[in-house]
Amino acid sequence: MQTIRDPAELEALTSSERAPGETIGLVPTMGSLHPGHASLMALLRPRVDRLVVSVYVNPLQFGPGEDLERYPRDLRGDAALCREQGVDVLFAPPDLYPDGFATSVEVHGLTDVLCGASRPGHFTGVATVCARLFGLTRCHLAAFGEKDFQQLVVLRRMVEDLALPLQIVAAPLVRDADGVALSSRNKHLSPNERRRAQSLHRALSHLRDAAAAGTVQADALLDLAQQHIDADRIDYLALVDAHSLAPITQLQRRQPARALVAAHYGQTRLIDNVAVEWI
Amino acid sequence: MQTIRDPAELEALTSSERAPGETIGLVPTMGSLHPGHASLMALLRPRVDRLVVSVYVNPLQFGPGEDLERYPRDLRGDAALCREQGVDVLFAPPDLYPDGFATSVEVHGLTDVLCGASRPGHFTGVATVCARLFGLTRCHLAAFGEKDFQQLVVLRRMVEDLALPLQIVAAPLVRDADGVALSSRNKHLSPNERRRAQSLHRALSHLRDAAAAGTVQADALLDLAQQHIDADRIDYLALVDAHSLAPITQLQRRQPARALVAAHYGQTRLIDNVAVEWI
Repeated sequence: MQTIRDPAELEALTSSERAPGETIGLVPTMGSLHPGHASLMALLRPRVDRLVVSVYVNPLQFGPGEDLERYPRDLRGDAALCREQGVDVLFAPPDLYPDGFATSVEVHGLTDVLCGASRPGHFTGVATVCARLFGLTRCHLAAFGEKDFQQLVVLRRMVEDLALPLQIVAAPLVRDADGVALSSRNKHLSPNERRRAQSLHRALSHLRDAAAAGTVQADALLDLAQQHIDADRIDYLALVDAHSLAPITQLQRRQPARALVAAHYGQTRLIDNVAVEWI
Repeated sequence: MQTIRDPAELEALTSSERAPGETIGLVPTMGSLHPGHASLMALLRPRVDRLVVSVYVNPLQFGPGEDLERYPRDLRGDAALCREQGVDVLFAPPDLYPDGFATSVEVHGLTDVLCGASRPGHFTGVATVCARLFGLTRCHLAAFGEKDFQQLVVLRRMVEDLALPLQIVAAPLVRDADGVALSSRNKHLSPNERRRAQSLHRALSHLRDAAAAGTVQADALLDLAQQHIDADRIDYLALVDAHSLAPITQLQRRQPARALVAAHYGQTRLIDNVAVEWI
């Protein structure tokens, strides 16, 4: 495995130096890698000739007062996990952006709701860093987890709108044995917060099961879920169309829907989601 | 020459169907082509395997009250000129953007000054349409004229910031025999306006010559130029750093500078510029 720190070196490697016809895959991360990230690498590994993992804690996607400084960092552990997954290139730039950097990519509408409502500018930071990483790596495939479901929808929109020459691949959310969705931020939870955080997945599972059993009214489904959530504060709990992220009032057959939650435990904000289908 | 109307068809042609290693060049235009555009095609023709010219009057780059509706259109004439220049593909989509299109690309700072100050949103529309055209065409080279000097600076910034896999090629401004910079909008000028519009180039030439002769103070150079301009209204007359577009107070040796003007003649707004060097 090759570790590259300089964006220009990566760009040289993935453009002129690579063999013609070679397929490149990218897993963009903020490091502090866990089995959720490993699943993204495992998904791409058999589909590409060269697998690149980027590790960069992107300041653009953190708002004032958010946890940029305390976001966990562990490049040594990240490198070990990447090696295990057969990664070819670990791209870990100290600085990603060039001097005079001035460009931002905004996806309107989709970024105003859910996490976007409480984290203004977050998804513009995500779209911008991903556009630059897609460009630098010249990737044909890029993998993202359904854990960050809104991010996935936003990036798919960006790729289609700008006709970027790559395909976004989605991987299912990965949970710990206790049901908590894997997240680098879980490290900040106290044992008691960790126990209470299990309620997020439990609540979403109840919602999903009730929908499968025939409850179609969003109000009823969301009330049910809310009763099961044990958190210091719920940021949002929503049932939305899986493509437009518009709120749903009643489930329709063959309309993919998603239930999503964001909640605070002390200083830590967690998110989770499930697919909801009325069979 | 092949004419393509459907963005998906163009994308298929320029990605999977093209021969590996083939080089693609793009000249993005709003049609109503003139010898200025032809010079862009001639610049790229010997450097690429496949030359694409796009003709699309992009609504995103017109503000409310601007001349979107009266912008001249002449697809038959455009096709003839492209054929003469050995163009391979004329891409003339009735609609360029997909359903649900929601993305914009903004280049901050550089777009707030000069034309950006009086045309808010214009350069965001330009950057966005160019990002999409670059994506659809998978071009390796894209040519733009120095006539739209600020546009060139903005697009170079975007390409560097997003590490887009192409190179921007600049072509010198082309003038008619009377010195007026070629522009599709010149068609709207009355004979008297046309005569008065010659003053723009004359004024810039005086400025350039005075600089070459040793006048280095921007105030003095701009005063000199202003005395020669005959227009209904001057939007701006400026002397700026050629890379940052920041105003210059005094020319420095080896600092590329540019003098730019925008002025109104009746309903028509014209722009012009020259390179300024203190030798």
